[in-house]
Amino acid sequence: MSKAGADEGGAGGCGDSAKQLEAKDEKGGTLLSKLPAGPGWTKVSCPCCFSERVEPLVVVKLGGKVGPETKRWLIKMIGAPQKDGGAALLAHPGEDASGDIIVVSAPRCTLLRAAEELGLCKTYRSGDMEAFSYNDRDNFKDSDNMEAFLTLAERQYIVKYELDGLRAQKDLRIPGLPESRMLQKRDNIWQKLSSAGVVVDTFPLHNRKKLKDLGEAWYSGNQLAQPLDSVNDYFGSAVAFYFSFLDFYTWSLLTPAILGLTISYFSGEAQKEMVDSVSGSKVIINDDDSGPMISGHMLQAMFSMIWSTVFMELWKRRSSSLSYRWGTMNLAERFAEPRPNFHGDLGVNPVTGRMEPLFPEWKRDLRMVLVSVPVVGLFLGLVVLGMMCFYWGEAQVKQLHKDWDSLLSQALLYIPSVLHIVYTNMLGNVYRNVAQSLTEYENHREESAFENHLTAKILVVSSCFPLLLSHYLIKCRVSSLTGSPFFLQFTFFNNFAVLFHIAFFKQDVPLLRKRLASLLIVSQLVNQVTEVVIPFLVDRFISAPHRTESEDDPQEDKFRNQRTLPVFPGLFAEYIELLVQFGYLSLFSCVYPLTAVLLLINNITEIRSDAYKICNLFRKPFSPPVANMGVWQVAFEVLSFVSVISNCWLLLLSPRLQELCREGGLTSTNVLLLAVLGEHVLILIKFIMAALIPDEPDWIRKKREQMEYTSMQALKEQKLQPEVS
Amino acid sequence: MSKAGADEGGAGGCGDSAKQLEAKDEKGGTLLSKLPAGPGWTKVSCPCCFSERVEPLVVVKLGGKVGPETKRWLIKMIGAPQKDGGAALLAHPGEDASGDIIVVSAPRCTLLRAAEELGLCKTYRSGDMEAFSYNDRDNFKDSDNMEAFLTLAERQYIVKYELDGLRAQKDLRIPGLPESRMLQKRDNIWQKLSSAGVVVDTFPLHNRKKLKDLGEAWYSGNQLAQPLDSVNDYFGSAVAFYFSFLDFYTWSLLTPAILGLTISYFSGEAQKEMVDSVSGSKVIINDDDSGPMISGHMLQAMFSMIWSTVFMELWKRRSSSLSYRWGTMNLAERFAEPRPNFHGDLGVNPVTGRMEPLFPEWKRDLRMVLVSVPVVGLFLGLVVLGMMCFYWGEAQVKQLHKDWDSLLSQALLYIPSVLHIVYTNMLGNVYRNVAQSLTEYENHREESAFENHLTAKILVVSSCFPLLLSHYLIKCRVSSLTGSPFFLQFTFFNNFAVLFHIAFFKQDVPLLRKRLASLLIVSQLVNQVTEVVIPFLVDRFISAPHRTESEDDPQEDKFRNQRTLPVFPGLFAEYIELLVQFGYLSLFSCVYPLTAVLLLINNITEIRSDAYKICNLFRKPFSPPVANMGVWQVAFEVLSFVSVISNCWLLLLSPRLQELCREGGLTSTNVLLLAVLGEHVLILIKFIMAALIPDEPDWIRKKREQMEYTSMQALKEQKLQPEVS
Repeated sequence: MSKAGADEGGAGGCGDSAKQLEAKDEKGGTLLSKLPAGPGWTKVSCPCCFSERVEPLVVVKLGGKVGPETKRWLIKMIGAPQKDGGAALLAHPGEDASGDIIVVSAPRCTLLRAAEELGLCKTYRSGDMEAFSYNDRDNFKDSDNMEAFLTLAERQYIVKYELDGLRAQKDLRIPGLPESRMLQKRDNIWQKLSSAGVVVDTFPLHNRKKLKDLGEAWYSGNQLAQPLDSVNDYFGSAVAFYFSFLDFYTWSLLTPAILGLTISYFSGEAQKEMVDSVSGSKVIINDDDSGPMISGHMLQAMFSMIWSTVFMELWKRRSSSLSYRWGTMNLAERFAEPRPNFHGDLGVNPVTGRMEPLFPEWKRDLRMVLVSVPVVGLFLGLVVLGMMCFYWGEAQVKQLHKDWDSLLSQALLYIPSVLHIVYTNMLGNVYRNVAQSLTEYENHREESAFENHLTAKILVVSSCFPLLLSHYLIKCRVSSLTGSPFFLQFTFFNNFAVLFHIAFFKQDVPLLRKRLASLLIVSQLVNQVTEVVIPFLVDRFISAPHRTESEDDPQEDKFRNQRTLPVFPGLFAEYIELLVQFGYLSLFSCVYPLTAVLLLINNITEIRSDAYKICNLFRKPFSPPVANMGVWQVAFEVLSFVSVISNCWLLLLSPRLQELCREGGLTSTNVLLLAVLGEHVLILIKFIMAALIPDEPDWIRKKREQMEYTSMQALKEQKLQPEVS
Repeated sequence: MSKAGADEGGAGGCGDSAKQLEAKDEKGGTLLSKLPAGPGWTKVSCPCCFSERVEPLVVVKLGGKVGPETKRWLIKMIGAPQKDGGAALLAHPGEDASGDIIVVSAPRCTLLRAAEELGLCKTYRSGDMEAFSYNDRDNFKDSDNMEAFLTLAERQYIVKYELDGLRAQKDLRIPGLPESRMLQKRDNIWQKLSSAGVVVDTFPLHNRKKLKDLGEAWYSGNQLAQPLDSVNDYFGSAVAFYFSFLDFYTWSLLTPAILGLTISYFSGEAQKEMVDSVSGSKVIINDDDSGPMISGHMLQAMFSMIWSTVFMELWKRRSSSLSYRWGTMNLAERFAEPRPNFHGDLGVNPVTGRMEPLFPEWKRDLRMVLVSVPVVGLFLGLVVLGMMCFYWGEAQVKQLHKDWDSLLSQALLYIPSVLHIVYTNMLGNVYRNVAQSLTEYENHREESAFENHLTAKILVVSSCFPLLLSHYLIKCRVSSLTGSPFFLQFTFFNNFAVLFHIAFFKQDVPLLRKRLASLLIVSQLVNQVTEVVIPFLVDRFISAPHRTESEDDPQEDKFRNQRTLPVFPGLFAEYIELLVQFGYLSLFSCVYPLTAVLLLINNITEIRSDAYKICNLFRKPFSPPVANMGVWQVAFEVLSFVSVISNCWLLLLSPRLQELCREGGLTSTNVLLLAVLGEHVLILIKFIMAALIPDEPDWIRKKREQMEYTSMQALKEQKLQPEVS
């Protein structure tokens, strides 16, 4: 604590801040409480923003070699008002001016202005949600109490938004940095600082007390419902949408699960009867593709085709209610500042009239069509090539093994698989970088557009070829865990691909059924273990000892400790897992009616384990406000249409149907034609159903129209104003 | 003219109006000029609306037995201000108070207020199109000169809109009508009057001078471009969109036409070479499904699949530019008065806060799902049943003819066809009424929604079965022409159905080619004749003699004369014709590459003949402002996706491909599977292309976003107002 005396710099002077912190800790007792305003914190610029205690929101971790003058400059930038090119936030230098962290918070006015800029909706006087307006702030509920007005996630995101938006107002030399790191006018300061190694990391702080409450309501008890509003409050709408979808999906599984149980029961009965009637011959039971299964087979197929569309449509309605409830249905990302990496010629935005980089739409379209599409196509081709080489190689070595039949040739049998795994792995790694660069090159203005295009690129290549998909599934999870990328490769690898292969090439329904069943049971178990148990053990026994926290530790060390947790890997792996599940269910469930039951059981535990994981095993993620699941919604819908193809195909393979056709005197070509006809009709029905079920509930539609109407009226009034006054 | 003296009634006294009219006519010389304001016309309520001359816009034809007191009351209603329950229009009693017409016009204020209510966009001070606002009228260009500010079609539609919107403010007895015709409070007056036989007809007046100018620019010369803006001005946006689409479609045909010519030329060359090489044997020329055609065949098929998507996407962009240009991109139909037939419990509209009938959305959805869908399904079933009976009957009589081979059995051969025609006809007539009632029952709030749902219903049943479709095509045209519904039945009947039958059941490509060619040449010719020549002759030699107009005729008689023209039958038949054409082109053109060439030639004349027809052969239609083609756009897009199925199928049938497969050692099932795979991939490509090509040009998107942004800002400002002031 003696270091505190050495500090002379931080704007506002932070003489005895550390002492104060400590004192507070002893008094308050909560692990992460508010820091007192005043000493240590930069000064707020307007009186309305002053409050007794300042809540630390975000920690900026500086590089080891950053001198005190650079830190002082940075703190000044963070605290300076926006008209002077600052971020208008509150900064605290931690223990002293030479420490390697800066704690950042935000005053009321900055939060409110950013909330308006982001287009957040908040409860108005009338009780409706309305787009927040800074000038009209007094008519919004709780607008004087930031902790009730904005969620923790929103406040933290706003800090990041303001930091990311820092731009140099003129050419500028950063104190303590070499000449070569000069800032040019309009350079993005935060990006420059990151590339210069000054800022190593920026992460939001956990609030231990809130986290504990959330955990208790979420995963500790036997509760059936998730506290989705609290999740949105603490983790932000992106995470909350994932858990809402998981919740909605899990409960929607009830119907197919009940149907599946019924079908299994009755087909079991029927099998028994058959056994009785042909008593003695037990062959029928062992013969998996026996008759009785088939009627259930067809019922299940028809049901799952309809169910998937109804499910997606109902989810859309639920999603739009949630986004109204969370105030994100009217996000103004288009009208806000562009994302930091967006570049273009400086000009006046014709829409908002603000000065910002401009990039014409047609150029982006051109880049997508002429660069992105061909490159993605190339990688698709490489995946197919790899696949074909694998099959060719396998056939070759099998032939070789047959000819030689030695130990060496036996070993050779594994070579194609190993080579293919290595190839797919390399391709996957390269592609991930390529996709990132391509999307960067497309130069999207909004963060959400960037995310959606990146996810779409990865999804297209990976889901077109299930091999890569499972690869990604493992990749994402494993790399975020133990650092061993080959850890679970051999367990998960090929799951989906194997099912496809069996269904469409081998055309062997009984085998498909067996594999699906074993896969559902075994792999879901393994999944749970790798997802939670291993990270938990790693966290508890490997990482945690380095991170023992005692009550006496200074607040700063506790902040630093949060950095020892691994970075949250994003929701990609989680969504992919659901997508694969949904794939099992909608594509193949007709051959194994118990799929939905097993998935239901899995998901009920999955909710808890995912909740535990995000609460305890990772650093808290920044989460921008979002209005829906983005591109994942499209992915699920596409899968639901693909399911028609798969189900029709599986029905075609069913021995019962083939027998019927043979009895009916139809040639196989005619049967195939009929199946294709049926498939087209079913797809048409799904389209019509999707069009008939409205995407938003009636009351949301009314609210939306009301908003449109009032803003139309307001526009007319406003144009009149200059004349009147 | 002596009758004029007897008139004492019309509000405002119309003493010597007829004389004035005559005087004007002699002076002005134009056939339909403005009537002088003052005597005859009802008085305008505000000074700004007074103008020297009043332009007659709409004629109301009264029933023969309507007494002068009823007419006087009606004129008063039309002229009364809106706060007194009137229409705030201008009315003129024609020759005298007992004549059977009322001429209606609209004063400036009524026009402007209605323009705001309809959400029309007009040129603002800044040069952009902006939603018109009455209070801000001085900032809009030309807002003091109604004839420049609103188009003729808009002015006439506004008159109709105001008349249709007349509602009784209290229980009321109409003078001269029996007690049983009492008006209840909030009854729609115009509907009541129509059902009581007081108002027989309401139609907009032609403006001979404008019409002559339009005709000269449109169809008299050799001009290539259509005067679309003038068409929009005179006939309104619905008609203008049809002609714009026809125009765009015709020019888009150039590419496939050139390709078709090239393919025909080269395949002709190749054929000749083949003939040379196997000189002497002329068989190959006669054999239509010879080899050389096939490579062109495939090229044409691939091209037409891609072309149809690109064409539709580009049209959407064109369509959105047009709707910006014509000020209809921001129509506020949702916020305006509901359509007259809309019923529901009286209540406060939650969006606009106005008192009006309300009808919950879910009830409408329920009615659609539980009533409309099953009924439409039933009719589909009946069509299929009829079709099956026809084929069964035909097989029976053929068998009979084979067995007996007499003159009687020969006559019997025609019975199934005749029965089927009668059945389809009856079904079509019944269905048209049923569709109308169903859509009425669904109780749509907006006129455009009503129209779209009605068109969709008819399209679904008729295009699902080409038989009914061609039936409708004839039905609509013929009934509007000579009154003989069976006139062209036998020429057109089965055109489309025959092609389908040949392609999918007989699977005979050469026959398909021949039929398509003959159909394109013969039926298009017949088409043109029936569409224009016959009505023209009928009009010139049968109707016209009853309608000889001399310069000396009083203006009123000229107005009356316009009623002798047949009612414009709507654009349904026109659009269907284009749809069928587009069907020929996208579904079957790969077997006959010259399709596009023939269609191009046809369309160039079609533009002129359609223009001539609408200008001269029909009464002028009312045309609400519309923002696009509505449901027709969807129909064309659906057809473009169906074309993939048809083209893949035709490729599959091509002998060249089958030969290749046989050489490649593929079984027919495998070939079929490959074709299905190809079809799915092509549909996917079309989807992606449709998603990648933006639906509106960049500059429109910017304007739209700008509007959204400014109205968002305005809303925030406005909420602040009460506090400030």
